[in-house]
Amino acid sequence: MQNFEYCNKTKIIFGKETENLAGSETVKVLAGDRYAKRILLHHSGGSAARSGLIDRVKESFKKAGVEWVELTGVQPNPRLSLVLEGIEIVKKEKLELIFAVGGGSAIDSAKAIAVGAVNDGDIWDFFEKKRSADRALPIGTILTIPAAGSESSTSCVITKEEGPWKRGMNFQCNRPAFSILNPQLTYSLPPYQTACGIVDMMAHIMERYFTKVPNVELTDELCEGALRTIIRNARKIFNGAFDNYDARAEIMWTGALAHNGFLDTGRLGDWASHALDHELSAVFDIAHGAGLAILFPSWLRYVYREDMSRVARFAAKVWGVDGAFYDYEQAALEGISRMENFFRSIGMPVSFADANLDTSRIPELAKRAFSLRPVIGNFRKLVEKDALAIYEMAAK
Amino acid sequence: MQNFEYCNKTKIIFGKETENLAGSETVKVLAGDRYAKRILLHHSGGSAARSGLIDRVKESFKKAGVEWVELTGVQPNPRLSLVLEGIEIVKKEKLELIFAVGGGSAIDSAKAIAVGAVNDGDIWDFFEKKRSADRALPIGTILTIPAAGSESSTSCVITKEEGPWKRGMNFQCNRPAFSILNPQLTYSLPPYQTACGIVDMMAHIMERYFTKVPNVELTDELCEGALRTIIRNARKIFNGAFDNYDARAEIMWTGALAHNGFLDTGRLGDWASHALDHELSAVFDIAHGAGLAILFPSWLRYVYREDMSRVARFAAKVWGVDGAFYDYEQAALEGISRMENFFRSIGMPVSFADANLDTSRIPELAKRAFSLRPVIGNFRKLVEKDALAIYEMAAK
Repeated sequence: MQNFEYCNKTKIIFGKETENLAGSETVKVLAGDRYAKRILLHHSGGSAARSGLIDRVKESFKKAGVEWVELTGVQPNPRLSLVLEGIEIVKKEKLELIFAVGGGSAIDSAKAIAVGAVNDGDIWDFFEKKRSADRALPIGTILTIPAAGSESSTSCVITKEEGPWKRGMNFQCNRPAFSILNPQLTYSLPPYQTACGIVDMMAHIMERYFTKVPNVELTDELCEGALRTIIRNARKIFNGAFDNYDARAEIMWTGALAHNGFLDTGRLGDWASHALDHELSAVFDIAHGAGLAILFPSWLRYVYREDMSRVARFAAKVWGVDGAFYDYEQAALEGISRMENFFRSIGMPVSFADANLDTSRIPELAKRAFSLRPVIGNFRKLVEKDALAIYEMAAK
Repeated sequence: MQNFEYCNKTKIIFGKETENLAGSETVKVLAGDRYAKRILLHHSGGSAARSGLIDRVKESFKKAGVEWVELTGVQPNPRLSLVLEGIEIVKKEKLELIFAVGGGSAIDSAKAIAVGAVNDGDIWDFFEKKRSADRALPIGTILTIPAAGSESSTSCVITKEEGPWKRGMNFQCNRPAFSILNPQLTYSLPPYQTACGIVDMMAHIMERYFTKVPNVELTDELCEGALRTIIRNARKIFNGAFDNYDARAEIMWTGALAHNGFLDTGRLGDWASHALDHELSAVFDIAHGAGLAILFPSWLRYVYREDMSRVARFAAKVWGVDGAFYDYEQAALEGISRMENFFRSIGMPVSFADANLDTSRIPELAKRAFSLRPVIGNFRKLVEKDALAIYEMAAK
């Protein structure tokens, strides 16, 4: 186990009807030397508004005496231009807290605004690792799409239209002050978005699980248990239980754990698949979860020989593959195959062909993946020719 | 799954030689409107001083410009009189942070001082549930005995000599600002203390595991994985690997998770065994872990019919009992028997007789357990005659 530090300040408010606490929780948050009262309400303007959620949230703000300025227009793979607009508004209006309603896109957009509002200079510098941030405005969230784990993570991923480039920044000050998670709000998610979220949270766990750091038994066990919980409940949902509170609750809470950092305490995760998918998302504007479903099986087939016993264990403990004690390689490959079949069973693409992506751009994708660094991945270090091979394996 | 709130502000600093960060971490903690510089250094004056740890900590304080007043004398089942002395010193010297070095006793004593220093009136009122606290001085810790989980929990248990009474208070403000966990510091723990700690952390998980709340799959999985991790690594240590870093690290990190509240998000734990043991500890001054080893198997044999499938699952997933699908009851009883054998294998008493406790005081123990409330436990509600039966089952 490696030395580590872990601290997660986000308060989670979980359960039925908890969105009605938006106002009362906001006014408990210290913004500098006073409690937050003037906020930026940030969302897509789409389904959360149509469903009446935004109206309920505003009602809750009114009751608590919270004033808001609204900034809508967040889209999947959230854009830098909207972040810049948000920073302007927050500075001009002297707002004290950024309140996001939505999925990872709305929350990540809010995080970038929160950093930009109190750190002068070019916000994109943080995403290009030229600067680091240790302060931001406080953030509150209502999560409507369990997927990115942004509701209690340090992570924030933004797309710069010029390029386009999709890049992340990871700072402790990115963790929201509080996040409200009501599984009822996820009943109406379309199957495709539900599935994208499931793959995304599974990938967050698997990126951490595939490590070369030895003696990380507790977090191995926790990762495996979390993956089994997601898979079992995903099957329940896709068997028709789209409005099953308990299944939705398991998925939602596991999604937060998947990316809050606890599962990789003492470990060093891989993250090559995420890096490879960032290029897929940037070039084709495909949903993050769908991109990961396409890439993760091919990545694992490319690298499994690095530690066959770990991949066999993954097959046995997560996918119920028997026979791991006889033949690690056979078990490992069977596990990867079951993962791919599971992704397919919930309607995810598992190849470029499935998603109608243009394979002629693969060399460009491979080149882009190394624009900021010469090597990606830790379970196995990958260079451009490896990325090329993985994209090619995922082509059909 | 029940609605819940979860927030854990404690920063964990984990790994080799991390005790040298005591000073630099202390001066990062905000105490009111300034960073902490004047602190109370609180410990037993025993092994941590003899081993040279306290000297290293003082060196670290000096380097960081931290001034301290020292208060030693913490003992197992920490006493109210020392807490009162600590509160006096902190007020008189205008100290800004309480720094505990030791196990749960030192940390709990520090927590009580931290609350008492900024809340006037009788500190014991908090333990008798007459008042609740929402503020305390910040706390830093160096953990030397993985057991109580106090290093990142809301829990604080103190013994009032007059009675004697052993009672707890659980407030969010009890969570330390930071805790330093170096597994190397636990190599020198005597086997008996190591074993007491192992039982204590297992009990923290099992109290949460045995719930009547349905649909808590993620936390079921996490509890089981954490228990397996403790058992496997405890066996390794007691097979002679007392200075095995990796085994000690797994035990230490799992001990913090066991009681930080994450494992019972959405659940309602039982806690009858803890209540029954508080009387055992108060009357006989026996170590908490040893008392739990005596009581937990009897408690579970008394209550398992409440939910035979859950106890059978516990037997199968934690203790590897096969056959749970044929006969829940047989599997459940075999699981309890394996748990008892495991406790015995690491040198723990599993009966009053093993620990030479006076069984004639059992009626008094049963009476005491209900001095503050008419019922204990949630998996099964217990009244005085139930407590009497459980103590009697544990007698020999």
